Amino acid sequence: MSRLTGGDPSLLRRINSAVVLHALRGGDARTLTDLTRITGLSRPTVEGVVEGLIGNGLVVEVAPEEGEARRQGRPARRFRFRAEAGHLLGIEIGPHRVAALMSGLDGRIIGAGSREVPETASADERLERVRTVVADVLRRTGVARGSLRAVGVGTPGIVEADGTVRLGTALPGWTGLALGGRLRRSFRCPVLVENDANAAAVAEQWKGAATDSDDIVFVLAGLSPGAGSLIGGRLHRGFGGAAGEIGALHLLGQGATPETLLSTTDEPLHPLDEQAVAEVFALAREGDARAREAVERFIQRLVHDVAALVLALDPEVVVIGGWAAGLDGVLEPLRKELARFCLRPPRVVLSLLGEAVVATGALRLALDHVEEQLFAVEGTVTARR
Amino acid sequence: MSRLTGGDPSLLRRINSAVVLHALRGGDARTLTDLTRITGLSRPTVEGVVEGLIGNGLVVEVAPEEGEARRQGRPARRFRFRAEAGHLLGIEIGPHRVAALMSGLDGRIIGAGSREVPETASADERLERVRTVVADVLRRTGVARGSLRAVGVGTPGIVEADGTVRLGTALPGWTGLALGGRLRRSFRCPVLVENDANAAAVAEQWKGAATDSDDIVFVLAGLSPGAGSLIGGRLHRGFGGAAGEIGALHLLGQGATPETLLSTTDEPLHPLDEQAVAEVFALAREGDARAREAVERFIQRLVHDVAALVLALDPEVVVIGGWAAGLDGVLEPLRKELARFCLRPPRVVLSLLGEAVVATGALRLALDHVEEQLFAVEGTVTARR
Repeated sequence: MSRLTGGDPSLLRRINSAVVLHALRGGDARTLTDLTRITGLSRPTVEGVVEGLIGNGLVVEVAPEEGEARRQGRPARRFRFRAEAGHLLGIEIGPHRVAALMSGLDGRIIGAGSREVPETASADERLERVRTVVADVLRRTGVARGSLRAVGVGTPGIVEADGTVRLGTALPGWTGLALGGRLRRSFRCPVLVENDANAAAVAEQWKGAATDSDDIVFVLAGLSPGAGSLIGGRLHRGFGGAAGEIGALHLLGQGATPETLLSTTDEPLHPLDEQAVAEVFALAREGDARAREAVERFIQRLVHDVAALVLALDPEVVVIGGWAAGLDGVLEPLRKELARFCLRPPRVVLSLLGEAVVATGALRLALDHVEEQLFAVEGTVTARR
Repeated sequence: MSRLTGGDPSLLRRINSAVVLHALRGGDARTLTDLTRITGLSRPTVEGVVEGLIGNGLVVEVAPEEGEARRQGRPARRFRFRAEAGHLLGIEIGPHRVAALMSGLDGRIIGAGSREVPETASADERLERVRTVVADVLRRTGVARGSLRAVGVGTPGIVEADGTVRLGTALPGWTGLALGGRLRRSFRCPVLVENDANAAAVAEQWKGAATDSDDIVFVLAGLSPGAGSLIGGRLHRGFGGAAGEIGALHLLGQGATPETLLSTTDEPLHPLDEQAVAEVFALAREGDARAREAVERFIQRLVHDVAALVLALDPEVVVIGGWAAGLDGVLEPLRKELARFCLRPPRVVLSLLGEAVVATGALRLALDHVEEQLFAVEGTVTARR
């Protein structure tokens, strides 16, 4: 439990400021009378707070509308949140692609860019590609680098709190890389690094297939499966940042990896070879018996992975993403098997955000960070359950 | 996010009251000067708050110690928390046993009782046994039933928020039973019903093997395995109260239940037959080959279950309880296999609370409920991460 002391006037000032900003964040311009009504604060308090927010650039007075002055005498002054007072980046660094999204402080996306990158690229080459994509997005949006308030990054691997990749076998040179530290050289704002599946879970709740739920498991289904989860609306990272790394479950007891299961030959597929995977699925659709068996094996394994997550976490919704989300016939077996084995089967849906899911989640994490500063008191004064 | 309004004098009064009560809860008697120093509140505020707490019976003035008055002139008045102002019960309703623990408002246990119950007992018979055990404990402690502030109950099954057992196959007549409603007829205070493994997880953090961690998985290892988890210090129930019900994982893909795995004949063991299990383990210790194979199969399955939980949740500590905690040689294979397959293997320890674990957790849940009322403001004003 947090320690509390009694009445703290500076705490109250911050609460009041956060409350007014919250009331303005919706986007509509508000009069002081509006704000007094919405917040329940006194008019002098609201006036003082608005003055402070104008002073630090987060609020601006809106010019009276054309003709308003003539119609009603002197119109009431109106104020709006300045979403353009700062900007955010969400970056995905993946095995084949680097992508970035940009938004203002309201989270509305105003720019995007991406580049392919070879899966064999070194960490330096991959980071160089990141810098190129970011520079492109900044140039095309006309946003100054100094306007960035936070940068979120989603990438495969277990990521420590300081942005170091503890373990990331999908990308060359990734394990042990001080990714946060390296990226901070390019930005003067905070850089937040997160596991890609975790970022994706955040994204699906923000703008994707699970906006109506606070208890979500996102499964990045592919040859190296991973998962991210929100519990009660919060990202569940686990004690060591490794929650949802279910890939290892394959190694237990059965030994067969998805690469082996999906292979139609004696050789396993390459863990990152999406093309080979697509071919197996295409063959299966055409009726090839070996390919169908391979796909069947793969789906059974996916069912087992998802069931383990569902039994451990009991989410309301499971969102299937990654390339498996593009497969025909993944949803039905999943729903059927989960209904058989789970005491309370969750809803199972496909990702709505597709390729943008990781960058979108990374952007949301950057926005969360900034909002925690802007609405600091709301961040700390919140219901416990 | 919670809605906030600005300064609220009654909120401040409640905060101040909770802060003073918190300072007194440790058990030592305090002077007004002590409380002013500890809380940072003004002396008149502290005086007003203490007066209110005396009024509602939660605080009492301590008589001056013998000789103190003579030595120092008039001694400062001292006050203490009245742990005896209310009482709590923690009850376990299990397949073979009903048990109860009683404490005052400080959580210190002042009474206990238990009775065996046949596993074939009907729900009515089992509830009658609960009433007998509770009456015994009340009589022996001399506590009036009206002094009970909350009752916690731990029992197998998926339990809904209102205390109805949604699914509970371990006990006859349990599925669909309005257990909370039935028990509320015996008590005038709140009755909180919780899954047994969830209660056990709470207990191990409170007084058991994981007092130093906020990220815990408790595995109730037995023929019908279940698990409970704390994430960031909070009980994780799951969206539908079914989190940790990993028993079903056995049904997926492999079909064999622990009852089959542990059997040395063609017939599976009875799911609740702990005696038969003990015999298998005794035979294995004596070197019987079939029994050793059976135990080996059982441990491998336990490893798989625990690995699924660990990969999904990434806890700091796994506590093994249930009767498997009494087995030789469960810990070592678990630690070894988890180290092989988990990216960040957790600490694996045995339960310290043994048979008392579920009732202890139920008691803690009752205490939590009362403390949320006493320290209501601390319950709502708490750090978000």
